Amino acid sequence: MTTEAEGYDHFHDECGVFGVFNHPEAANLTYLGLYAQQHRGQESAGIVSTDGHNFNTHRGIGLVADIFKKSEIKALVGKHSIGHVRYSTSGESGLRNCQPFSYEYAHGGIAMCHNGNIVNAPELRSELEQRGSIFQSTSDTEVLIHLVARSNATSMKERLAEAVDKLYGGFSLLVLGEERLVGIRDRHGIRPLVLGQIDDAWVLASETCAFDLIGATFVRDIEPGEMVVIDNNGIESIALFPPSKPNFCVFEYIYFARPDSTLEGVNVYQSRYQIGVELAKEAPAEADLVIPVPDSGVPPAMGYAEATGIPFQMGLIRNHYVGRTFIEPKQSIRNFGVKLKLNPNRKLIEGKRVVLVDDSIVRGTTSRKIVEMVRAAGAKEIHMRISSPPTKHSCFYGVDTPDANELMANKMSVDEMCQAIGADSLAFVSFDGLYRAVGKPSEMHCDACFSGNYPVPVEKKRSPQMSLLRIHNRGS
Amino acid sequence: MTTEAEGYDHFHDECGVFGVFNHPEAANLTYLGLYAQQHRGQESAGIVSTDGHNFNTHRGIGLVADIFKKSEIKALVGKHSIGHVRYSTSGESGLRNCQPFSYEYAHGGIAMCHNGNIVNAPELRSELEQRGSIFQSTSDTEVLIHLVARSNATSMKERLAEAVDKLYGGFSLLVLGEERLVGIRDRHGIRPLVLGQIDDAWVLASETCAFDLIGATFVRDIEPGEMVVIDNNGIESIALFPPSKPNFCVFEYIYFARPDSTLEGVNVYQSRYQIGVELAKEAPAEADLVIPVPDSGVPPAMGYAEATGIPFQMGLIRNHYVGRTFIEPKQSIRNFGVKLKLNPNRKLIEGKRVVLVDDSIVRGTTSRKIVEMVRAAGAKEIHMRISSPPTKHSCFYGVDTPDANELMANKMSVDEMCQAIGADSLAFVSFDGLYRAVGKPSEMHCDACFSGNYPVPVEKKRSPQMSLLRIHNRGS
Amino acid sequence: MTTEAEGYDHFHDECGVFGVFNHPEAANLTYLGLYAQQHRGQESAGIVSTDGHNFNTHRGIGLVADIFKKSEIKALVGKHSIGHVRYSTSGESGLRNCQPFSYEYAHGGIAMCHNGNIVNAPELRSELEQRGSIFQSTSDTEVLIHLVARSNATSMKERLAEAVDKLYGGFSLLVLGEERLVGIRDRHGIRPLVLGQIDDAWVLASETCAFDLIGATFVRDIEPGEMVVIDNNGIESIALFPPSKPNFCVFEYIYFARPDSTLEGVNVYQSRYQIGVELAKEAPAEADLVIPVPDSGVPPAMGYAEATGIPFQMGLIRNHYVGRTFIEPKQSIRNFGVKLKLNPNRKLIEGKRVVLVDDSIVRGTTSRKIVEMVRAAGAKEIHMRISSPPTKHSCFYGVDTPDANELMANKMSVDEMCQAIGADSLAFVSFDGLYRAVGKPSEMHCDACFSGNYPVPVEKKRSPQMSLLRIHNRGS
Amino acid sequence: MTTEAEGYDHFHDECGVFGVFNHPEAANLTYLGLYAQQHRGQESAGIVSTDGHNFNTHRGIGLVADIFKKSEIKALVGKHSIGHVRYSTSGESGLRNCQPFSYEYAHGGIAMCHNGNIVNAPELRSELEQRGSIFQSTSDTEVLIHLVARSNATSMKERLAEAVDKLYGGFSLLVLGEERLVGIRDRHGIRPLVLGQIDDAWVLASETCAFDLIGATFVRDIEPGEMVVIDNNGIESIALFPPSKPNFCVFEYIYFARPDSTLEGVNVYQSRYQIGVELAKEAPAEADLVIPVPDSGVPPAMGYAEATGIPFQMGLIRNHYVGRTFIEPKQSIRNFGVKLKLNPNRKLIEGKRVVLVDDSIVRGTTSRKIVEMVRAAGAKEIHMRISSPPTKHSCFYGVDTPDANELMANKMSVDEMCQAIGADSLAFVSFDGLYRAVGKPSEMHCDACFSGNYPVPVEKKRSPQMSLLRIHNRGS
Repeated sequence: MTTEAEGYDHFHDECGVFGVFNHPEAANLTYLGLYAQQHRGQESAGIVSTDGHNFNTHRGIGLVADIFKKSEIKALVGKHSIGHVRYSTSGESGLRNCQPFSYEYAHGGIAMCHNGNIVNAPELRSELEQRGSIFQSTSDTEVLIHLVARSNATSMKERLAEAVDKLYGGFSLLVLGEERLVGIRDRHGIRPLVLGQIDDAWVLASETCAFDLIGATFVRDIEPGEMVVIDNNGIESIALFPPSKPNFCVFEYIYFARPDSTLEGVNVYQSRYQIGVELAKEAPAEADLVIPVPDSGVPPAMGYAEATGIPFQMGLIRNHYVGRTFIEPKQSIRNFGVKLKLNPNRKLIEGKRVVLVDDSIVRGTTSRKIVEMVRAAGAKEIHMRISSPPTKHSCFYGVDTPDANELMANKMSVDEMCQAIGADSLAFVSFDGLYRAVGKPSEMHCDACFSGNYPVPVEKKRSPQMSLLRIHNRGS
Repeated sequence: MTTEAEGYDHFHDECGVFGVFNHPEAANLTYLGLYAQQHRGQESAGIVSTDGHNFNTHRGIGLVADIFKKSEIKALVGKHSIGHVRYSTSGESGLRNCQPFSYEYAHGGIAMCHNGNIVNAPELRSELEQRGSIFQSTSDTEVLIHLVARSNATSMKERLAEAVDKLYGGFSLLVLGEERLVGIRDRHGIRPLVLGQIDDAWVLASETCAFDLIGATFVRDIEPGEMVVIDNNGIESIALFPPSKPNFCVFEYIYFARPDSTLEGVNVYQSRYQIGVELAKEAPAEADLVIPVPDSGVPPAMGYAEATGIPFQMGLIRNHYVGRTFIEPKQSIRNFGVKLKLNPNRKLIEGKRVVLVDDSIVRGTTSRKIVEMVRAAGAKEIHMRISSPPTKHSCFYGVDTPDANELMANKMSVDEMCQAIGADSLAFVSFDGLYRAVGKPSEMHCDACFSGNYPVPVEKKRSPQMSLLRIHNRGS
Repeated sequence: MTTEAEGYDHFHDECGVFGVFNHPEAANLTYLGLYAQQHRGQESAGIVSTDGHNFNTHRGIGLVADIFKKSEIKALVGKHSIGHVRYSTSGESGLRNCQPFSYEYAHGGIAMCHNGNIVNAPELRSELEQRGSIFQSTSDTEVLIHLVARSNATSMKERLAEAVDKLYGGFSLLVLGEERLVGIRDRHGIRPLVLGQIDDAWVLASETCAFDLIGATFVRDIEPGEMVVIDNNGIESIALFPPSKPNFCVFEYIYFARPDSTLEGVNVYQSRYQIGVELAKEAPAEADLVIPVPDSGVPPAMGYAEATGIPFQMGLIRNHYVGRTFIEPKQSIRNFGVKLKLNPNRKLIEGKRVVLVDDSIVRGTTSRKIVEMVRAAGAKEIHMRISSPPTKHSCFYGVDTPDANELMANKMSVDEMCQAIGADSLAFVSFDGLYRAVGKPSEMHCDACFSGNYPVPVEKKRSPQMSLLRIHNRGS
Repeated sequence: MTTEAEGYDHFHDECGVFGVFNHPEAANLTYLGLYAQQHRGQESAGIVSTDGHNFNTHRGIGLVADIFKKSEIKALVGKHSIGHVRYSTSGESGLRNCQPFSYEYAHGGIAMCHNGNIVNAPELRSELEQRGSIFQSTSDTEVLIHLVARSNATSMKERLAEAVDKLYGGFSLLVLGEERLVGIRDRHGIRPLVLGQIDDAWVLASETCAFDLIGATFVRDIEPGEMVVIDNNGIESIALFPPSKPNFCVFEYIYFARPDSTLEGVNVYQSRYQIGVELAKEAPAEADLVIPVPDSGVPPAMGYAEATGIPFQMGLIRNHYVGRTFIEPKQSIRNFGVKLKLNPNRKLIEGKRVVLVDDSIVRGTTSRKIVEMVRAAGAKEIHMRISSPPTKHSCFYGVDTPDANELMANKMSVDEMCQAIGADSLAFVSFDGLYRAVGKPSEMHCDACFSGNYPVPVEKKRSPQMSLLRIHNRGS
């Protein structure tokens, strides 16, 4: 039996984006910007650059540092560039859905990539097909570019505005024209997009940690519903929609974003730490040790330990060399999948009452194995504390989530969950605690996965598109 | 200096196609059909199969036998399949232009591939872009599929007929629908397309040699301007155009096709041998030996030897393990590029008067080196005989040819050419001799590369399209 | 300029070993045992298995999870197996030095691998060459196997004893015979080797964390100078040398071993944490935050924070997707190499007095960059605390260390070092503090890299051998 | 079912060698020399170069043109070089047996490769193992180098002479020392070895065609039992044994060597052609066409046609793009394996009486399929003519042959063979005819595979050695 190292029992952000306008080393900066955002997508990556006329693309399956070698970076000539990392949401393999996409249309070359999801893409696609459009991928981006190409507007920004006006969902979008870099955030600002500067260039990224690596200065978050158009005349901000309440994804703070990023004015690490502090107040425990499930459990575990005064210890050691699959011996090893990634330190744990802090419980399978493994290492009591409210609903705005009926919290009470995972107690942070930790009100966020309040209406579950085509390409 | 083994100084057919309808091992037969037609294109290959709903694609850079392993063939499920081998005409690398193409449109999935060239593709593309179409490749096929998708006709065959009616050029086209295989030949029948049967399946191929390998029975050549539609009800033949004079590419007989193929009723090997016989009558020589430039020079050299009574010998030995590039030593080796492929047998040649028989002279560079090399091996006299008329014009119907101004015969008289290549005499077969050998009249063929008589008007040299996009994908 | 992500400015353990006797899935367990010990060597890995007659080998360059796929594991048939991971110490590329080595000699097949270094290998090699031995690698293992093959003793254990008697150095060695697994530890017990059991099989490993993954039970550490011979009759322990004081490598506790391993009765994590506690006592600081340099700085930083009461925060975020090399932009990025791996969280650090805890300072280059980077992130004061004494000497017992004259502590006082790295204060744990933390006396350890007291005499620096041969093999 | 394209039903030469002394581009010339001799071995290739001190090796699995790219050639620095191509004789995969071998021993670096077989290698190996030698490969070369290393002689040429004196078999050997290139031919001169010059360098090769490619001048064949030692003082010839009758392998003329090579004064192509002439005299046929089985059947078929006056035609077309394996459709294709490589041209063959000329019949399976296929293409009569005597015995001098009991001619009379392959008549050239065609007496050749007269005694069938070790290495 082939086993995958666990880690899949999480929600997963689908993508990260990065763009540069007017830098002599645009492709290299984009490469580094993607590398810093690798946590947002590990399946594939791509970069398109332009010298104002030709568009050069390199895309591949795998990690950024493997896909782009010196020669590939060198071939991506031009002073403007966009790039994308992607976490696949389905079994579709192959490069066909790998972004950025580049096309030629009546107004020259154009390339696009985005982080998020266009909720009404299937309807738009169907309409476009009725009007004679052909599709090669299942990506929302292909829908958008058809809309742009069919627009009769005379400027690129008008064509984009016209197209984006038709879109519903949560998305942050980068568009590269021949002499123009455009960044667009959906009207609710669900997914992040930040603006920075380096030398004489403007840069756009999903997270600020990308700016830190290349030494760019953070300027500001792009506003919900804002389109920034960067060209040789400078930067122009266009409000595509009347101002409305933002709904930034709160899960970015809990799990998706890198802890050293600061999004919408909130430092991710600090918000995580504070969630631990709130959790300690809401759900204290009589225990000897606080142990995080690494890595995202570390800051809330520290906050929890600080607030309760219980010693904090790294009682679960993470293996950093995790590969794709492993062959499990026939004489099966207990909790093999989890063990490939985590090992409890028996010397620390034995005979102790332990608080385990993790960021979320999705299907519950991993949590159950971790509890079992920690108990097998000698823990006397295990008190599970979760740094998010129970995840009861799927996300339709660019996050890979199981069907709602696979979510443990959707089917069970907290008590039932506690029993199911085998813990001695279980508690989740409350909505109030969460937003106190974040430091901003609930109304400014999307927490649909916890609350079921979807800022963009989702009539029915988005169905997979174009399963007709299964492509595999092989390079030379 | 890195040197390529010579062999490029030829016209090159761009593609070969193969299709199967209703065979349990459709993809495997297609794979073998492509393998047998590998001489029509060595740069890339692809197969699309369908089970009536899903379309499965595997494409790659390289040779058929390398691209398709057992697992790839197995993944190409379904009883219908089309495939393609391609010889690249330009420097565009990457898989983006690799056929077959598959898309989803309003009527479901569709895949296409073709051998040849649509002369008015740039105009059609430009019109389509004005109407909002977007393009990912430079292939004519993408133009055609846009036309099909934009057709309002209610059946696939009508949509195809409507689209093909707009096309000018020389092309043989395969289309795979969900329950339908279609084969179309342009109105002049410039490129070949043959129909066969195996078990309960119909097969379509560029050449009959593909049928021989899989044990299929040859049925007939598809007619110029004919569309055959194969579905579960059988095969239907539709004349897309009023009957007109065919113009089959005569160079297929001279060089492109495999000698064991029979096209338009003419066996390729026999026509080549007969050209040698005619050449002997038209341009005899006082000589001791007839030596072919392998491999396509072999049959005409044998015919020449037979007709003149001069002994035939394999005085040039071909290296069958030719790789892509070689590093030439700094202390340069004379005629290194040619020597990597051919070696003269000095023991045979020394002191002899030699007739060298080759199929064509394109730029003349290879011919000059061969003559020089044979002379260095001791030949006393070298009489060059060419089994085609002088190639003075470019082809615009799917054959890779240099610009006309690079063609030696376009710039020089036969005498000047003889001097330029360093031979003692030089002769080309005449038009009359050529068609006597083929056994069918000149009027039934396209010989534009020799005569300049283009059956489909070509207003100006076809310009390269969409040089904007340069893509490189990398598989996992 | 191509830059490597930093991390090289450490001492590096050269190898890890794993062996199994009598398990139906011997190769798979070995594979998992190597995977769990990947931190001991990331350059290459190999496994040899035997069914009692044939010896099967698979070795490769790269990570364990990449080298061994299902088919490779399957081909490694047999119930006995040994494996090896290797961190290269020099520029020698290629597989030739990749362990285990397998040979045929007068008594059948034999395979070997080891962790450590045979100090007198060059002398032994030279003697062997005088007697007609030929060498294909630069590995000490090849020397040993020649000694075994030339022994006249009648049993394998006698041949091994005779050979090992000639060796000086620090090494833990696994030998696989046709029906025999042997584990040997040098007379000083410098490198670790532990014994365990799983089902009906015995297992040997460098570290206990390998047992945890596969669910084996830890039995005991192999003794200094002990040879254990495992065959179908059970396990036999042979003392190769008269009992003497052990000298276990103290750096295993500080940095090499995985924190969840327990070696010589000491839990690695706990000893690291306690070093932090001792360091706090010895070198307290007026500060607002304790920040570890991840990952090995984490436990001592926690101990330091606990003991001083200064809050502990993860102020440096580690990028887990570090690749081999990166192209630094021409407009150079400050501290680029370090930044590829670590990013300071400005929001935490700004305006704070910071204690930075790291495990060692080798050349000092990385420390200087980290200090500079943390200061650039706004730290008001930086107090560097190191969880080892100053590393002043090279190691000759299987650890990759720079020449002594490249070691910062060899050339500078602590004050000078403090100034050189730009910190506001710098302190190292004392010898006493270190051993108090470990809980065992100094005399039982090798701390030559700190003290210069070499338990095995090293006359002169070991010179690189057999630089004559540079091999590159290429698989199919 | 996976099928291999036929072609294996031949005897196969195991190797080709090439060496250069004193050329600034030694490795590149060696690479080209191996490329020209690729027909002597397609499984693996290797080159070792030396600058007088370091030895650089690159070896790989596959074809020369794939294994050596610019960077590999560049890394093979030094003015002296040897190289090797190899056709594997057994299932042993991996690089371990890939030549040349390089070692370090008491007198510095040394590298070796050879074409042929040392008949008494197993005995020598066993003796060496008793004396403490260890072996990593199954190659005879490793035996030889152990003998050299154990010699007490003071010069390399004496050590080599002493070692070679112990060897029996058929082999041509190249040895590269730090400042010395040595070529040795066994005392019977069974395998070829030729000497040439280019610029200021000496070159050694298996065949003269290697000289033709690089523009080297052929000097002479190395004599049976001769050792040539080339160093900065020039070339020295040493007779290792008293003069005796040569026994050059006659199969080199029939099949192994390239037709454009000249060995022992005989041009290979001409000898093949003459065999056809002799065969025509000995075994004429009433027929309409002479058709060769390409490629080695071409010259004798031409000779046969010339002598009988029956027209010669290329009625079997060879596919030049043959891959390793193919999946045969379940509804099996008749003679699939042969068809992948050869296709009969029905238009030529239909209704004709055909003489088929091939070089040998080994197991007879391929011959049967070819006859069947040609008959299915419409041949009225098939007269098989073979350009060698019946192959009744195995070769033990470096040629890959089946066990004698698998040889059709060993078990059947010619009449029975004729019936078994389904031909209308069958004839082999006689011994007399063969040697008349070669132009030199039988006594000067080894024809053991036909006659059973082994010039070097072979006590029993050579058994496979060291099946103990199965190695697979994987490059980075």
